[in-house]
Amino acid sequence: MDYNYSERMSKLNGAATREILKLLTRPEIISFAGGFPATQCLPQKEVQEIANELLSEGRATEVLQYGTTEGFVSLRQQLIEYVKTAGIENVELDQTLVISGGQQGIDLMSKAFLDKGDVVLVENPTYLTALQIFDSYQAKIIGVNADKNGLDIEDLENKIIQYKPKFIYCVSTFSNPTGKTYSIANRRQIASVTAKYNVMVLEDDPYSKLRFEGEPVPSIKSFDTQGNVVYVTSFSKVLSPGLRMGVAIGNKEVIRKLTICKQGVDVSTSNLSQLIVCEYLKRGYLFPNINKSLPIYRERKNAMIDAINKYMPDEFSYINAEGGLFIWGGFDAPINTTTLAPEAIKHDVAYIQGQVFYPCGDVTNMIRLNFSNASVERIDLGIHRLGDMFKAEIAKVK
Amino acid sequence: MDYNYSERMSKLNGAATREILKLLTRPEIISFAGGFPATQCLPQKEVQEIANELLSEGRATEVLQYGTTEGFVSLRQQLIEYVKTAGIENVELDQTLVISGGQQGIDLMSKAFLDKGDVVLVENPTYLTALQIFDSYQAKIIGVNADKNGLDIEDLENKIIQYKPKFIYCVSTFSNPTGKTYSIANRRQIASVTAKYNVMVLEDDPYSKLRFEGEPVPSIKSFDTQGNVVYVTSFSKVLSPGLRMGVAIGNKEVIRKLTICKQGVDVSTSNLSQLIVCEYLKRGYLFPNINKSLPIYRERKNAMIDAINKYMPDEFSYINAEGGLFIWGGFDAPINTTTLAPEAIKHDVAYIQGQVFYPCGDVTNMIRLNFSNASVERIDLGIHRLGDMFKAEIAKVK
Repeated sequence: MDYNYSERMSKLNGAATREILKLLTRPEIISFAGGFPATQCLPQKEVQEIANELLSEGRATEVLQYGTTEGFVSLRQQLIEYVKTAGIENVELDQTLVISGGQQGIDLMSKAFLDKGDVVLVENPTYLTALQIFDSYQAKIIGVNADKNGLDIEDLENKIIQYKPKFIYCVSTFSNPTGKTYSIANRRQIASVTAKYNVMVLEDDPYSKLRFEGEPVPSIKSFDTQGNVVYVTSFSKVLSPGLRMGVAIGNKEVIRKLTICKQGVDVSTSNLSQLIVCEYLKRGYLFPNINKSLPIYRERKNAMIDAINKYMPDEFSYINAEGGLFIWGGFDAPINTTTLAPEAIKHDVAYIQGQVFYPCGDVTNMIRLNFSNASVERIDLGIHRLGDMFKAEIAKVK
Repeated sequence: MDYNYSERMSKLNGAATREILKLLTRPEIISFAGGFPATQCLPQKEVQEIANELLSEGRATEVLQYGTTEGFVSLRQQLIEYVKTAGIENVELDQTLVISGGQQGIDLMSKAFLDKGDVVLVENPTYLTALQIFDSYQAKIIGVNADKNGLDIEDLENKIIQYKPKFIYCVSTFSNPTGKTYSIANRRQIASVTAKYNVMVLEDDPYSKLRFEGEPVPSIKSFDTQGNVVYVTSFSKVLSPGLRMGVAIGNKEVIRKLTICKQGVDVSTSNLSQLIVCEYLKRGYLFPNINKSLPIYRERKNAMIDAINKYMPDEFSYINAEGGLFIWGGFDAPINTTTLAPEAIKHDVAYIQGQVFYPCGDVTNMIRLNFSNASVERIDLGIHRLGDMFKAEIAKVK
């Protein structure tokens, strides 16, 4: 049998991260490759308590029978309260859509807006699965320059004029992969320049609640006066990725289109996941649990920075993130982190090569290191191994 | 703000069924519109027991942390055993993909195979959400003639030659909307004619376990010798639709492509849903619970048939299904069931107009009646109301 796949499949290969994660079956491998929350921060007791109550006789039908595509009203009301913490006020029920993880928001936005050949602008570099989703819609992905304050607004405006993009995609707080946070001024400018040119923004915010240093900043969505920003957030990093729960907030006409797309994708998000998150929010468990998690993340991030300073070659520099899950760094030396990634696994340590985060795939000296899911001891040991490997490589090319 | 949606959105409106379901907020309305399993058949006690054990300390990490896109190996092993009941033998692990409800299988197959303008052949009429999914990929949908034994093989072969379709979609057992089951000979012929022309088959089987009369038949997949049939089944009708759980079985190369598509759609199916289904199968709860449900469904189906014979006009004829959830019927009279559907709601009863199940939307005298989710008394009352309404309409046009 010859399988005659769609054209889009020629560009789609397995996600680099998920393929690498599958290699990590040997327990001696120290993985900085994933984006997993710390296992001890997963709220086992609370979820068990809630699930047990939800599945008691009084509420089981709600859980087990079909639900609406939009999601439970009780949950959406909780989510309206929740997004106020990102500065998003006055959200109405029909401006909310429950989604099966934040990533589904990227897929639904792509479905609703992208035809083959349409342009999406992204921060360069950006979340690699977003790039793959845009590829699956055969969009043209163009990178926008960025610095420590956020997107380069002049470059953004020029590229809007030149490419007439359908939307801009960005992870505005503790960006994946760079860990960077856009300044408030930058957010305001993004909202205003995109409104000026009638361009949508997809603001992806899975990480902002994991801030262990500095002051919180409001979302780009909070500066949206024209209804052109869709804000997506996820419970994967602050509660549980296994539940696959997120929410999209936007203009009600756009949310209606995303809902129609979702009808054809998965009918609705798992009722049990929805109602667990609803009760978790209602009972006030979220923020106390996040506050218990933050010292663990802070300690691990600091351990990674200390280890980098101690073991990595002088040619390596990095961005010291104020939150999130990642340290992003690169070599001022002809080091190809893509070809070295399998080599690192031989040394029992894994990272993600920077190349996969660039729409053009043209940068090969960067690496993304995840610090959230390894102990302080293993972080030290893993960075030690990586440092030794990279130092040996630099010695070779010198 | 002018929203510049993708071209595909111009054909996508809200699913007729889901829109009608949203109208049904008044409890006095008797709904034959949905496809809900009977609420008292939802296994509350068993799911509560399993969820509680899964969320105990020993297994909570498995539930709450990220899982693989393919799904839990333990679940996939159970599913390999389960599909043997559809005559599908010798399935290997890499021929299985856990999906978020059976419907996701239709979306993933479309993503992997359909470019704009590609042809999908479907039984005429067929599941309306499948039609909407194919529309969302801008495919051309062509209906294949069918009779009580299944697809018209000559018409199928001619249309394969004429249209070179990417795949054939069919609900081979207790079809939605017709309730029909393809004969064994027909299944064998479908497998052989599609293999001859190198055409894929997407066999959608959500209903076959809900058989209350007659003998079970093996799936089309069981006659697949070339790896061109993808079999999709769902736990929505036999366990719980709220969990959003299903499985796709196919050639390993095709399953790999569907997995890559799923990575970009929802990362993985909810771990809790997956592991609940895994334990439910492992503990042997499925078939005893189905056997307890069947008399309820049989009784309701018989009540609907009795009520139809008693109250519906003589011009109405129907197919008496041996299982599943639906009675399909039509008028030998100029009755437009589409324009009468809102009228029926005014009479506190709901059905789905047949028109939405036809790719060409050219048939307006048919209706689909769901019997699974109303009591015997309400079935009698609802069909009485419908019968009165249709009799009055027929009197008008005579």
